[in-house]
Amino acid sequence: MADEVVLVNFNLSMFCIRVRIALEEKGVKYEIKEEDLVNTKSALLLQMNPVHKKVPVFIHNGKPISESLIIVEYIDEVWKDKAPLLPTDPYQRAQARFWADFVNNKVHEVAKRIWTGKVGEHEAEKKELIENVKQLEEVLGDKPYFGGETFGFVDIALIPFYKWFSSYEKVGNFKLHYPKLIGWANRCLERESVSKSVSDEKDVYEFVLMYRKLIGVD
Amino acid sequence: MADEVVLVNFNLSMFCIRVRIALEEKGVKYEIKEEDLVNTKSALLLQMNPVHKKVPVFIHNGKPISESLIIVEYIDEVWKDKAPLLPTDPYQRAQARFWADFVNNKVHEVAKRIWTGKVGEHEAEKKELIENVKQLEEVLGDKPYFGGETFGFVDIALIPFYKWFSSYEKVGNFKLHYPKLIGWANRCLERESVSKSVSDEKDVYEFVLMYRKLIGVD
Repeated sequence: MADEVVLVNFNLSMFCIRVRIALEEKGVKYEIKEEDLVNTKSALLLQMNPVHKKVPVFIHNGKPISESLIIVEYIDEVWKDKAPLLPTDPYQRAQARFWADFVNNKVHEVAKRIWTGKVGEHEAEKKELIENVKQLEEVLGDKPYFGGETFGFVDIALIPFYKWFSSYEKVGNFKLHYPKLIGWANRCLERESVSKSVSDEKDVYEFVLMYRKLIGVD
Repeated sequence: MADEVVLVNFNLSMFCIRVRIALEEKGVKYEIKEEDLVNTKSALLLQMNPVHKKVPVFIHNGKPISESLIIVEYIDEVWKDKAPLLPTDPYQRAQARFWADFVNNKVHEVAKRIWTGKVGEHEAEKKELIENVKQLEEVLGDKPYFGGETFGFVDIALIPFYKWFSSYEKVGNFKLHYPKLIGWANRCLERESVSKSVSDEKDVYEFVLMYRKLIGVD
Protein backbone atom coordinates (compact mmCIF):
# COMPACT_ATOMS: atom_id res chain seq x y z
CA MET A 1 0.00 0.00 0.00
CA ALA A 2 1.33 3.42 -0.92
CA ASP A 3 1.62 5.88 1.96
CA GLU A 4 -1.14 8.44 2.18
CA VAL A 5 0.49 11.65 3.37
CA VAL A 6 -1.53 14.80 4.00
CA LEU A 7 -0.40 18.12 5.45
CA VAL A 8 -2.96 20.48 6.91
CA ASN A 9 -1.10 23.64 6.03
CA PHE A 10 -1.02 27.41 6.13
CA ASN A 11 1.47 28.52 3.54
CA LEU A 12 3.13 31.32 5.55
CA SER A 13 3.29 29.37 8.82
CA MET A 14 6.87 28.91 9.94
CA PHE A 15 5.84 25.66 11.61
CA CYS A 16 4.29 24.28 8.41
CA ILE A 17 7.37 25.29 6.45
CA ARG A 18 9.49 23.10 8.73
CA VAL A 19 7.35 20.11 7.83
CA ARG A 20 7.40 20.88 4.11
CA ILE A 21 11.20 21.15 4.11
CA ALA A 22 11.51 17.81 5.93
CA LEU A 23 9.18 16.13 3.42
CA GLU A 24 11.09 17.61 0.47
CA GLU A 25 14.41 16.49 1.95
CA LYS A 26 13.05 12.96 2.25
CA GLY A 27 11.44 13.02 -1.20
CA VAL A 28 8.03 12.14 0.25
CA LYS A 29 5.01 12.91 -1.95
CA TYR A 30 2.24 14.64 -0.01
CA GLU A 31 -1.08 16.33 -0.44
CA ILE A 32 -1.64 19.85 0.90
CA LYS A 33 -4.91 20.85 2.56
CA GLU A 34 -4.61 24.62 2.79
CA GLU A 35 -6.27 26.34 5.75
CA ASP A 36 -7.81 29.80 5.67
CA LEU A 37 -6.83 30.67 9.23
CA VAL A 38 -7.77 34.31 9.02
CA ASN A 39 -11.40 33.43 8.45
CA THR A 40 -12.31 30.03 9.85
CA LYS A 41 -10.69 26.76 10.81
CA SER A 42 -11.70 23.75 8.72
CA ALA A 43 -13.60 20.76 10.09
CA LEU A 44 -10.56 18.66 9.15
CA LEU A 45 -8.24 20.78 11.32
CA LEU A 46 -10.62 20.71 14.29
CA GLN A 47 -11.06 16.97 13.96
CA MET A 48 -7.40 16.14 13.49
CA ASN A 49 -5.96 18.49 16.13
CA PRO A 50 -8.75 18.94 18.69
CA VAL A 51 -6.26 19.78 21.44
CA HIS A 52 -4.43 22.76 19.96
CA LYS A 53 -6.56 23.41 16.82
CA LYS A 54 -3.40 24.57 15.07
CA VAL A 55 -1.51 23.86 11.87
CA PRO A 56 0.55 21.97 10.93
CA VAL A 57 -1.21 18.66 11.26
CA PHE A 58 0.54 15.80 9.53
CA ILE A 59 -1.76 12.91 8.63
CA HIS A 60 0.00 9.68 7.73
CA ASN A 61 -2.30 6.90 6.56
CA GLY A 62 -5.18 8.54 8.42
CA LYS A 63 -3.31 9.07 11.70
CA PRO A 64 -2.70 12.68 12.77
CA ILE A 65 0.39 14.17 14.42
CA SER A 66 0.69 17.75 15.67
CA GLU A 67 3.51 20.08 16.72
CA SER A 68 6.08 20.83 14.05
CA LEU A 69 9.23 19.52 15.74
CA ILE A 70 7.45 16.31 16.74
CA ILE A 71 6.30 15.91 13.13
CA VAL A 72 9.82 16.47 11.79
CA GLU A 73 11.22 13.84 14.18
CA TYR A 74 8.45 11.46 13.10
CA ILE A 75 9.26 12.02 9.43
CA ASP A 76 12.94 11.40 10.19
CA GLU A 77 12.11 8.14 11.97
CA VAL A 78 9.68 6.80 9.34
CA TRP A 79 11.65 7.74 6.20
CA LYS A 80 15.00 6.94 7.76
CA ASP A 81 16.88 5.74 4.71
CA LYS A 82 17.27 9.14 3.07
CA ALA A 83 18.62 12.50 4.28
CA PRO A 84 18.90 11.86 8.04
CA LEU A 85 17.87 15.00 9.90
CA LEU A 86 18.84 14.20 13.49
CA PRO A 87 22.36 12.96 14.25
CA THR A 88 22.78 9.36 15.43
CA ASP A 89 24.91 10.15 18.48
CA PRO A 90 22.67 10.60 21.57
CA TYR A 91 24.56 13.66 22.83
CA GLN A 92 24.39 15.38 19.44
CA ARG A 93 20.68 14.49 19.24
CA ALA A 94 20.08 16.11 22.62
CA GLN A 95 21.92 19.24 21.49
CA ALA A 96 19.86 19.40 18.29
CA ARG A 97 16.62 19.11 20.29
CA PHE A 98 17.85 21.77 22.70
CA TRP A 99 18.55 24.35 19.99
CA ALA A 100 15.35 23.59 18.09
CA ASP A 101 13.46 24.18 21.35
CA PHE A 102 15.46 27.39 21.78
CA VAL A 103 14.18 28.61 18.39
CA ASN A 104 10.59 28.02 19.57
CA ASN A 105 10.90 29.56 23.00
CA LYS A 106 13.69 32.11 22.70
CA VAL A 107 13.30 33.33 19.14
CA HIS A 108 9.66 32.84 18.11
CA GLU A 109 7.96 33.48 21.47
CA VAL A 110 10.04 36.57 22.19
CA ALA A 111 9.71 37.94 18.64
CA LYS A 112 5.97 37.35 18.62
CA ARG A 113 5.51 39.66 21.58
CA ILE A 114 7.27 42.34 19.50
CA TRP A 115 5.44 41.88 16.18
CA THR A 116 2.01 41.44 17.75
CA GLY A 117 2.58 44.18 20.32
CA LYS A 118 2.07 47.93 20.39
CA VAL A 119 4.93 49.96 18.97
CA GLY A 120 7.42 51.04 21.63
CA GLU A 121 6.13 48.77 24.39
CA HIS A 122 8.59 45.88 24.06
CA GLU A 123 12.06 47.23 24.76
CA ALA A 124 12.94 44.31 27.06
CA GLU A 125 11.89 41.79 24.40
CA LYS A 126 14.03 43.53 21.78
CA LYS A 127 17.10 43.35 24.02
CA GLU A 128 16.34 39.71 24.73
CA LEU A 129 15.89 38.85 21.05
CA ILE A 130 19.17 40.53 20.14
CA GLU A 131 20.90 38.43 22.82
CA ASN A 132 19.18 35.22 21.75
CA VAL A 133 20.09 35.69 18.09
CA LYS A 134 23.66 36.31 19.25
CA GLN A 135 23.58 32.97 21.06
CA LEU A 136 22.53 31.28 17.83
CA GLU A 137 25.47 32.97 16.09
CA GLU A 138 27.82 31.60 18.75
CA VAL A 139 26.50 28.05 18.61
CA LEU A 140 26.69 28.06 14.80
CA GLY A 141 30.25 29.39 14.94
CA ASP A 142 32.14 28.60 11.76
CA LYS A 143 30.27 25.42 10.96
CA PRO A 144 28.38 25.30 7.66
CA TYR A 145 25.21 24.05 9.42
CA PHE A 146 24.10 23.87 13.04
CA GLY A 147 24.75 20.13 13.18
CA GLY A 148 28.14 20.41 11.46
CA GLU A 149 28.77 19.45 7.84
CA THR A 150 25.21 18.46 6.90
CA PHE A 151 21.84 20.20 6.81
CA GLY A 152 19.61 18.93 9.61
CA PHE A 153 17.11 19.36 12.42
CA VAL A 154 18.15 22.75 13.83
CA ASP A 155 18.56 24.22 10.35
CA ILE A 156 15.00 23.15 9.55
CA ALA A 157 13.77 24.55 12.86
CA LEU A 158 15.34 27.97 12.29
CA ILE A 159 15.35 28.76 8.57
CA PRO A 160 11.61 29.64 8.30
CA PHE A 161 12.06 32.22 11.08
CA TYR A 162 15.11 33.74 9.41
CA LYS A 163 12.74 35.09 6.78
CA TRP A 164 10.89 36.96 9.55
CA PHE A 165 13.93 38.77 10.97
CA SER A 166 13.45 41.84 8.74
CA SER A 167 9.80 42.07 9.81
CA TYR A 168 10.78 41.89 13.48
CA GLU A 169 13.21 44.75 12.84
CA LYS A 170 10.77 46.90 10.89
CA VAL A 171 7.88 46.51 13.33
CA GLY A 172 10.10 46.95 16.39
CA ASN A 173 12.33 49.63 14.82
CA PHE A 174 15.53 47.99 15.96
CA LYS A 175 18.44 46.01 14.52
CA LEU A 176 19.44 42.40 14.96
CA HIS A 177 23.08 41.49 14.35
CA TYR A 178 23.63 38.16 12.65
CA PRO A 179 26.58 38.11 10.21
CA LYS A 180 27.19 34.34 10.50
CA LEU A 181 23.51 33.48 10.06
CA ILE A 182 23.49 35.29 6.71
CA GLY A 183 26.08 32.90 5.29
CA TRP A 184 24.30 29.94 6.88
CA ALA A 185 20.92 31.01 5.45
CA ASN A 186 22.41 31.37 1.98
CA ARG A 187 23.76 27.84 2.21
CA CYS A 188 20.33 26.57 3.32
CA LEU A 189 18.61 28.47 0.52
CA GLU A 190 20.76 26.73 -2.08
CA ARG A 191 18.74 23.60 -1.29
CA GLU A 192 15.59 23.24 -3.35
CA SER A 193 13.79 21.80 -0.29
CA VAL A 194 14.33 25.13 1.45
CA SER A 195 14.03 27.64 -1.39
CA LYS A 196 10.68 26.23 -2.55
CA SER A 197 9.28 26.14 1.02
CA VAL A 198 10.30 29.32 2.83
CA SER A 199 8.33 32.55 2.57
CA ASP A 200 9.29 35.68 0.73
CA GLU A 201 10.25 38.44 3.22
CA LYS A 202 7.88 40.86 1.50
CA ASP A 203 4.94 38.46 1.93
CA VAL A 204 5.83 38.01 5.60
CA TYR A 205 5.88 41.76 6.17
CA GLU A 206 2.54 42.23 4.38
CA PHE A 207 1.04 39.46 6.50
CA VAL A 208 2.41 41.03 9.68
CA LEU A 209 0.92 44.42 8.79
CA MET A 210 -2.45 42.82 7.94
CA TYR A 211 -2.42 40.80 11.16
CA ARG A 212 -1.54 43.83 13.28
CA LYS A 213 -4.56 45.67 11.83
CA LEU A 214 -6.75 42.62 12.47
CA ILE A 215 -5.82 42.42 16.17
CA GLY A 216 -6.02 46.19 16.56
CA VAL A 217 -2.44 47.08 17.56
CA ASP A 218 -1.84 49.38 14.57
CA MET B 1 35.84 3.75 32.10
CA ALA B 2 32.80 3.95 34.38
CA ASP B 3 30.25 6.57 33.45
CA GLU B 4 30.43 9.78 35.44
CA VAL B 5 26.85 10.92 35.92
CA VAL B 6 26.01 14.15 37.75
CA LEU B 7 22.64 15.82 38.22
CA VAL B 8 22.50 19.49 39.09
CA ASN B 9 19.31 19.27 41.10
CA PHE B 10 16.73 21.11 43.15
CA ASN B 11 14.90 18.53 45.17
CA LEU B 12 11.36 19.92 44.77
CA SER B 13 11.72 20.74 41.07
CA MET B 14 9.21 18.76 39.00
CA PHE B 15 11.68 18.85 36.13
CA CYS B 16 14.51 17.39 38.22
CA ILE B 17 12.16 14.71 39.54
CA ARG B 18 11.54 13.53 35.97
CA VAL B 19 15.27 13.00 35.50
CA ARG B 20 15.67 11.22 38.84
CA ILE B 21 12.81 8.82 38.02
CA ALA B 22 14.36 8.03 34.62
CA LEU B 23 17.75 7.34 36.21
CA GLU B 24 16.18 5.13 38.87
CA GLU B 25 14.21 3.20 36.22
CA LYS B 26 17.44 2.58 34.31
CA GLY B 27 19.41 1.72 37.46
CA VAL B 28 22.02 4.38 36.70
CA LYS B 29 24.18 5.50 39.62
CA TYR B 30 24.51 9.26 39.83
CA GLU B 31 25.82 12.05 41.96
CA ILE B 32 23.52 14.87 43.08
CA LYS B 33 24.71 18.48 43.19
CA GLU B 34 21.96 20.22 45.09
CA GLU B 35 21.23 23.85 44.20
CA ASP B 36 20.04 26.50 46.62
CA LEU B 37 17.86 28.31 44.10
CA VAL B 38 16.16 30.58 46.59
CA ASN B 39 19.46 32.23 47.45
CA THR B 40 21.98 31.99 44.66
CA LYS B 41 22.78 29.87 41.62
CA SER B 42 26.02 27.91 41.77
CA ALA B 43 28.99 28.51 39.51
CA LEU B 44 28.49 24.95 38.25
CA LEU B 45 24.90 25.66 37.17
CA LEU B 46 25.84 28.91 35.42
CA GLN B 47 28.75 27.22 33.67
CA MET B 48 26.83 24.11 32.61
CA ASN B 49 23.57 25.80 31.53
CA PRO B 50 24.57 29.32 30.51
CA VAL B 51 21.56 29.66 28.19
CA HIS B 52 18.68 29.03 30.58
CA LYS B 53 20.57 28.97 33.93
CA LYS B 54 18.02 26.42 35.16
CA VAL B 55 17.99 23.00 36.76
CA PRO B 56 18.02 20.19 35.90
CA VAL B 57 21.37 19.94 34.21
CA PHE B 58 22.50 16.42 33.46
CA ILE B 59 26.26 16.03 33.12
CA HIS B 60 27.40 12.79 31.51
CA ASN B 61 31.16 12.30 31.43
CA GLY B 62 31.60 16.07 31.66
CA LYS B 63 29.11 16.96 28.91
CA PRO B 64 26.01 18.91 29.99
CA ILE B 65 22.42 18.53 28.76
CA SER B 66 19.51 20.76 29.75
CA GLU B 67 15.70 20.62 29.53
CA SER B 68 14.09 17.74 31.39
CA LEU B 69 12.32 15.98 28.52
CA ILE B 70 15.44 16.18 26.36
CA ILE B 71 17.45 14.71 29.23
CA VAL B 72 14.95 11.85 29.71
CA GLU B 73 15.09 11.02 25.98
CA TYR B 74 18.89 11.10 26.18
CA ILE B 75 18.90 8.73 29.15
CA ASP B 76 16.54 6.43 27.26
CA GLU B 77 18.82 6.43 24.22
CA VAL B 78 22.09 5.89 26.12
CA TRP B 79 20.89 3.25 28.61
CA LYS B 80 18.67 1.52 26.10
CA ASP B 81 18.93 -2.06 27.31
CA LYS B 82 16.80 -1.61 30.43
CA ALA B 83 13.30 -0.19 31.04
CA PRO B 84 12.57 1.45 27.67
CA LEU B 85 10.74 4.73 28.29
CA LEU B 86 9.68 5.74 24.78
CA PRO B 87 7.84 3.24 22.59
CA THR B 88 9.63 1.90 19.50
CA ASP B 89 6.82 2.61 17.02
CA PRO B 90 7.32 6.08 15.44
CA TYR B 91 3.63 7.02 15.71
CA GLN B 92 3.47 6.04 19.37
CA ARG B 93 6.72 7.94 19.98
CA ALA B 94 5.21 11.06 18.42
CA GLN B 95 2.12 10.71 20.62
CA ALA B 96 4.27 10.32 23.73
CA ARG B 97 6.24 13.46 22.84
CA PHE B 98 2.98 15.32 22.16
CA TRP B 99 1.48 14.55 25.57
CA ALA B 100 4.72 15.23 27.43
CA ASP B 101 4.82 18.63 25.71
CA PHE B 102 1.16 19.09 26.70
CA VAL B 103 2.13 18.60 30.36
CA ASN B 104 4.73 21.38 30.02
CA ASN B 105 2.61 23.87 28.15
CA LYS B 106 -0.96 23.07 29.14
CA VAL B 107 -0.58 21.88 32.71
CA HIS B 108 2.56 23.47 34.15
CA GLU B 109 2.47 26.82 32.33
CA VAL B 110 -1.24 27.35 33.02
CA ALA B 111 -1.02 26.21 36.64
CA LYS B 112 2.02 28.39 37.28
CA ARG B 113 0.04 31.50 36.42
CA ILE B 114 -2.44 30.45 39.12
CA TRP B 115 -0.01 29.54 41.90
CA THR B 116 2.31 32.50 41.31
CA GLY B 117 -0.59 34.91 40.74
CA LYS B 118 -2.72 37.11 42.93
CA VAL B 119 -5.72 35.40 44.49
CA GLY B 120 -8.87 35.79 42.39
CA GLU B 121 -7.15 37.10 39.25
CA HIS B 122 -6.89 33.88 37.26
CA GLU B 123 -10.39 32.64 36.58
CA ALA B 124 -9.66 31.96 32.90
CA GLU B 125 -6.58 29.91 33.80
CA LYS B 126 -8.57 27.83 36.29
CA LYS B 127 -11.17 26.97 33.66
CA GLU B 128 -8.40 26.14 31.21
CA LEU B 129 -6.57 23.93 33.70
CA ILE B 130 -9.77 22.03 34.54
CA GLU B 131 -10.27 21.39 30.80
CA ASN B 132 -6.64 20.38 30.25
CA VAL B 133 -6.65 17.91 33.13
CA LYS B 134 -9.88 16.51 31.67
CA GLN B 135 -8.06 15.98 28.36
CA LEU B 136 -5.38 14.02 30.20
CA GLU B 137 -8.12 11.89 31.78
CA GLU B 138 -9.52 11.18 28.32
CA VAL B 139 -6.21 10.27 26.74
CA LEU B 140 -5.38 7.97 29.65
CA GLY B 141 -8.80 6.33 29.40
CA ASP B 142 -8.80 2.87 30.95
CA LYS B 143 -5.16 2.13 30.24
CA PRO B 144 -2.91 1.44 33.22
CA TYR B 145 -0.31 3.94 31.96
CA PHE B 146 -0.34 6.66 29.29
CA GLY B 147 1.65 4.50 26.89
CA GLY B 148 -0.48 1.39 27.54
CA GLU B 149 0.66 -1.54 29.65
CA THR B 150 4.04 -0.19 30.72
CA PHE B 151 5.27 2.82 32.65
CA GLY B 152 6.97 5.30 30.31
CA PHE B 153 7.74 8.77 29.01
CA VAL B 154 4.38 10.52 29.57
CA ASP B 155 4.01 8.98 33.01
CA ILE B 156 7.44 10.36 33.94
CA ALA B 157 6.51 13.75 32.47
CA LEU B 158 3.28 14.04 34.47
CA ILE B 159 3.71 12.29 37.82
CA PRO B 160 5.83 15.03 39.49
CA PHE B 161 3.08 17.57 38.67
CA TYR B 162 0.35 15.33 40.07
CA LYS B 163 1.80 16.06 43.50
CA TRP B 164 1.15 19.77 42.87
CA PHE B 165 -2.56 19.42 42.02
CA SER B 166 -3.70 19.96 45.62
CA SER B 167 -1.56 23.10 45.88
CA TYR B 168 -3.07 24.47 42.66
CA GLU B 169 -6.51 23.86 44.17
CA LYS B 170 -5.72 25.40 47.54
CA VAL B 171 -4.06 28.55 46.15
CA GLY B 172 -6.71 29.01 43.44
CA ASN B 173 -9.63 27.94 45.64
CA PHE B 174 -11.11 25.66 42.97
CA LYS B 175 -11.45 21.96 42.25
CA LEU B 176 -9.86 19.81 39.58
CA HIS B 177 -11.67 16.60 38.62
CA TYR B 178 -9.39 13.63 37.90
CA PRO B 179 -10.80 10.26 39.02
CA LYS B 180 -8.81 8.22 36.49
CA LEU B 181 -5.55 9.98 37.27
CA ILE B 182 -5.88 8.97 40.92
CA GLY B 183 -5.74 5.28 39.99
CA TRP B 184 -2.95 5.94 37.54
CA ALA B 185 -0.91 7.88 40.12
CA ASN B 186 -1.31 5.09 42.66
CA ARG B 187 0.03 2.62 40.11
CA CYS B 188 3.00 4.92 39.39
CA LEU B 189 3.66 5.38 43.11
CA GLU B 190 3.98 1.63 43.59
CA ARG B 191 7.28 1.91 41.72
CA GLU B 192 10.26 2.66 43.92
CA SER B 193 11.70 4.91 41.18
CA VAL B 194 8.65 7.15 41.56
CA SER B 195 7.92 6.94 45.29
CA LYS B 196 11.50 7.82 46.24
CA SER B 197 11.63 10.74 43.77
CA VAL B 198 8.34 12.65 43.91
CA SER B 199 7.65 15.36 46.47
CA ASP B 200 5.37 15.18 49.44
CA GLU B 201 2.24 17.29 48.83
CA LYS B 202 2.72 19.07 52.15
CA ASP B 203 6.28 20.11 51.19
CA VAL B 204 5.02 21.38 47.85
CA TYR B 205 2.34 23.49 49.53
CA GLU B 206 4.83 24.91 52.05
CA PHE B 207 7.18 25.78 49.21
CA VAL B 208 4.36 27.44 47.27
CA LEU B 209 3.38 29.57 50.29
CA MET B 210 7.02 30.55 50.89
CA TYR B 211 7.52 31.38 47.22
CA ARG B 212 4.35 33.48 47.09
CA LYS B 213 5.62 35.54 50.02
CA LEU B 214 9.02 35.87 48.34
CA ILE B 215 7.55 37.30 45.10
CA GLY B 216 5.08 39.45 47.00
CA VAL B 217 1.72 38.08 45.81
CA ASP B 218 0.52 37.09 49.29
